[in-house]
Amino acid sequence: MDKGLEQLKARMSEIMDLGHAASVLGWDQMTYMPPGGAEARGRQQALLGKLAHEKSVDPALGKLLDSLKPLEKKLDYDSDEASLIRVSRRGYETATKVPTEWAARYYKHQADSYEAWIKARPKSDFKAVLPYLEKTNKFAHEYADFFPGYDHPLDPLIDNFDFGLRAKKVKGIFKELRSDLVPLVKKISKAEQVDDSILSSDFPEEAQLAFGRAVATDLGYDFQRGRVDRTPHPFTTTFSIGDVRITTRFNKKVLSEALFSTIHESGHAMYEQGSDAKLEATPLAGGAGMSIHESQSRLWENVVGRSLPFWKFYYPKLVKTFPHFKKVKLLDFYKAINKVQPSLIRTEADEVTYNLHIMVRFDIEAGLLEDKVTARELPQVWNSRYESDLGVTPPNHSAGVMQDVHWYTGLVGYFECYALGNLLSSQIYGAAVKKRPAIAAEIGKGKFNTLHSWLTDNVYRHGNKFTTMELLKRNGLGDMDVEPFMKYLRAKYGGIYGL
Amino acid sequence: MDKGLEQLKARMSEIMDLGHAASVLGWDQMTYMPPGGAEARGRQQALLGKLAHEKSVDPALGKLLDSLKPLEKKLDYDSDEASLIRVSRRGYETATKVPTEWAARYYKHQADSYEAWIKARPKSDFKAVLPYLEKTNKFAHEYADFFPGYDHPLDPLIDNFDFGLRAKKVKGIFKELRSDLVPLVKKISKAEQVDDSILSSDFPEEAQLAFGRAVATDLGYDFQRGRVDRTPHPFTTTFSIGDVRITTRFNKKVLSEALFSTIHESGHAMYEQGSDAKLEATPLAGGAGMSIHESQSRLWENVVGRSLPFWKFYYPKLVKTFPHFKKVKLLDFYKAINKVQPSLIRTEADEVTYNLHIMVRFDIEAGLLEDKVTARELPQVWNSRYESDLGVTPPNHSAGVMQDVHWYTGLVGYFECYALGNLLSSQIYGAAVKKRPAIAAEIGKGKFNTLHSWLTDNVYRHGNKFTTMELLKRNGLGDMDVEPFMKYLRAKYGGIYGL
Repeated sequence: MDKGLEQLKARMSEIMDLGHAASVLGWDQMTYMPPGGAEARGRQQALLGKLAHEKSVDPALGKLLDSLKPLEKKLDYDSDEASLIRVSRRGYETATKVPTEWAARYYKHQADSYEAWIKARPKSDFKAVLPYLEKTNKFAHEYADFFPGYDHPLDPLIDNFDFGLRAKKVKGIFKELRSDLVPLVKKISKAEQVDDSILSSDFPEEAQLAFGRAVATDLGYDFQRGRVDRTPHPFTTTFSIGDVRITTRFNKKVLSEALFSTIHESGHAMYEQGSDAKLEATPLAGGAGMSIHESQSRLWENVVGRSLPFWKFYYPKLVKTFPHFKKVKLLDFYKAINKVQPSLIRTEADEVTYNLHIMVRFDIEAGLLEDKVTARELPQVWNSRYESDLGVTPPNHSAGVMQDVHWYTGLVGYFECYALGNLLSSQIYGAAVKKRPAIAAEIGKGKFNTLHSWLTDNVYRHGNKFTTMELLKRNGLGDMDVEPFMKYLRAKYGGIYGL
Repeated sequence: MDKGLEQLKARMSEIMDLGHAASVLGWDQMTYMPPGGAEARGRQQALLGKLAHEKSVDPALGKLLDSLKPLEKKLDYDSDEASLIRVSRRGYETATKVPTEWAARYYKHQADSYEAWIKARPKSDFKAVLPYLEKTNKFAHEYADFFPGYDHPLDPLIDNFDFGLRAKKVKGIFKELRSDLVPLVKKISKAEQVDDSILSSDFPEEAQLAFGRAVATDLGYDFQRGRVDRTPHPFTTTFSIGDVRITTRFNKKVLSEALFSTIHESGHAMYEQGSDAKLEATPLAGGAGMSIHESQSRLWENVVGRSLPFWKFYYPKLVKTFPHFKKVKLLDFYKAINKVQPSLIRTEADEVTYNLHIMVRFDIEAGLLEDKVTARELPQVWNSRYESDLGVTPPNHSAGVMQDVHWYTGLVGYFECYALGNLLSSQIYGAAVKKRPAIAAEIGKGKFNTLHSWLTDNVYRHGNKFTTMELLKRNGLGDMDVEPFMKYLRAKYGGIYGL
């Protein structure tokens, strides 16, 4: 191997491993850490972050990347080697634009703000978090200004989650999506409503865990390279291609919550597990932009996991494990897990109204960055948008503007990925079925290998080598498209609600 | 605070936190990590070790320590500040004598050798581990030579575990201990033997875990700053003074194994939890030499946990939890958990014969370092010593020379701490009871607060500020002494065996 490339690999491996070590500390913090460990853990996390940052902005790394330009040009763009140089350079260029001192203050803000939110949220105490929210807004503005020449001030922030995606494009997509969604939601609201009370009973946690594990295993999540643990707010985390873990929480009364959360996280995790083993310990391992990442969780959770064929196969097993369902018909169960109802909480929203939640958040972020909205005005803006868009009024801030962790850990620019992930889940699933038509029938037999292997070949194994747009083009998908998603919704919910 | 001292604190905090981050990774590896995570975890651990080492030998740290000499002289020796400078300098001087390149090779050897041992042990395949054992021996010799001027080549190695302790002193103590122990073991072997089959039945793991947790809580282990998890080889690990965790394993058939292991690890953990909070993130947190550390685990496990008063209190609770014991008398139970029987496995040995196991190991280490024994000869030396000292013959190497992990992770110089810990447990318990005579009676009431608080005041809170000898002197104990331990054994086992 080229000596410079070898040096680059060694440097990037250290940066990645520091990040992954921090992830282990983070996972422990969210799963097993006793309360007394919190203070030192924050300090330890900050140290690992600082060391990774120092290595990410090391001028010697910049020189090395410069010296690798001729090699990069000679190499095939798609090759692992060219991709390593390209993606490493992108990371270096971003990191060096952010002053180290600013980054340290920002990390501190993230931790402090999170602590404040954790305390204030149960009391719906917006006043307590407002100063932090104002700081988050200030940090977001400052961050944008480190990247002069942007088209929209959200763009540099969005780049952190989906490189190359632009606010303008998101606005265009959301405009179209909104004009399609609103009439559909209206039609559904006028149809006969679905009874989802049948989902409630008493479901022992251990049985829920075992059922979720069995389904995740069937889908293709590899427990030799992963595991599932309990946590208050489920997430997926990666320590290496060989160790990608999911987490879940249980509602003893409503079986579907943990189950679909487990399938969702398994989707993220299968993507991370699916990186080509050669990409281990490089920034190419993991996933492309977060829109693609969310598409993979939503594809398994919704397109597969909430489909009728899927439940034709699994329902007898479910009934066997949870006798409560003996008296519930499959079709009623299927309708209940797909019940559409405008609601307050994003994470509990159905597939149809979910994107309306996202648009509220994206528009607010754009407004903040455009200086059209202030942090102080957020509750009022939030509530009025929920009234106009979803027809519901938050009874308090914890069910409103204080419900999501993102802003309260300083994150701005992420939310659109959730909605774009929904669109892409339909597009990518469509591409898979087009190439391998057997997929649809196999789902009804509890077999997912054809779908899993198509996704591995065409999405997973590439890891972070390509941007979202590059990945779509490789799969003949052109651009992000609202229509396949709307077509999917109209067909599915047309059936359920007899539209 | 003095600016130099502030800088020292900041530097030591980073070194400690890197070590503690590595400990989190190690804990996860031994408790929850899926098999696929092993390879990357080794790489991540090595990186954290390397970074900590780089910071430990930074010449700027040496200069800082030099500049702090005048301040140190002005300060009280016992003060936190003087102790921080003193102990930091000791660490710096040790670390800088070891070439970085050597250390990297040694860490690699530790991991490789452990892997080889894990595979070879179940097959008793000594040939497979011999090359690693030879390397361990070579590394031990090389390490000693980094510290020219030693009295005995084991001394620099022993310094890593109990600073200031000398092989010559250990040899003297062991000579006396041996001449006292051998006749006692003989007397016991001629007395009527104890039936410990009454300890065997079926004990559900969850009930064992709950009982162990309850006892550990009573003793004073703080679960707000700790937790217990399952592992194949129980250990205690520290991530901060606020997060000290124990681990355990369960034998469904023999209740006493997990229970006494849990008490033992709680002893280590209470010591670590007991450091003065001001010592957090400094090398003063934790414990003094490992002889003192082992004394704390053995004090709680044996002096307290295997005493008759202790079981007078806990036996009714045990019987209630495990009805098997309804038909077993308290005194028979007490005798059974204290049964003396020369055996093959150190970790399963009783209090009386335990130290004989240690002496075999210590003498072998001394022989290796004195070039009187080669690695190849170990099985033969081991087996003949077990025959002569304990009267048992290992049927295979996994029950013999391959039973302990130490040499197979490159550790030489540790074993004597276990035996010295036994001696010190009697001395320290004696000192506690002398000052607070109520302690003995309180144990019979399931109250341990007086003992725990005496230990906190006189041992725990000092952390690593003092060496073993300094700590003994502070408590009026002069030097390590065989007699209190022998007196304890003679009284206890004289009673049990009617000698």
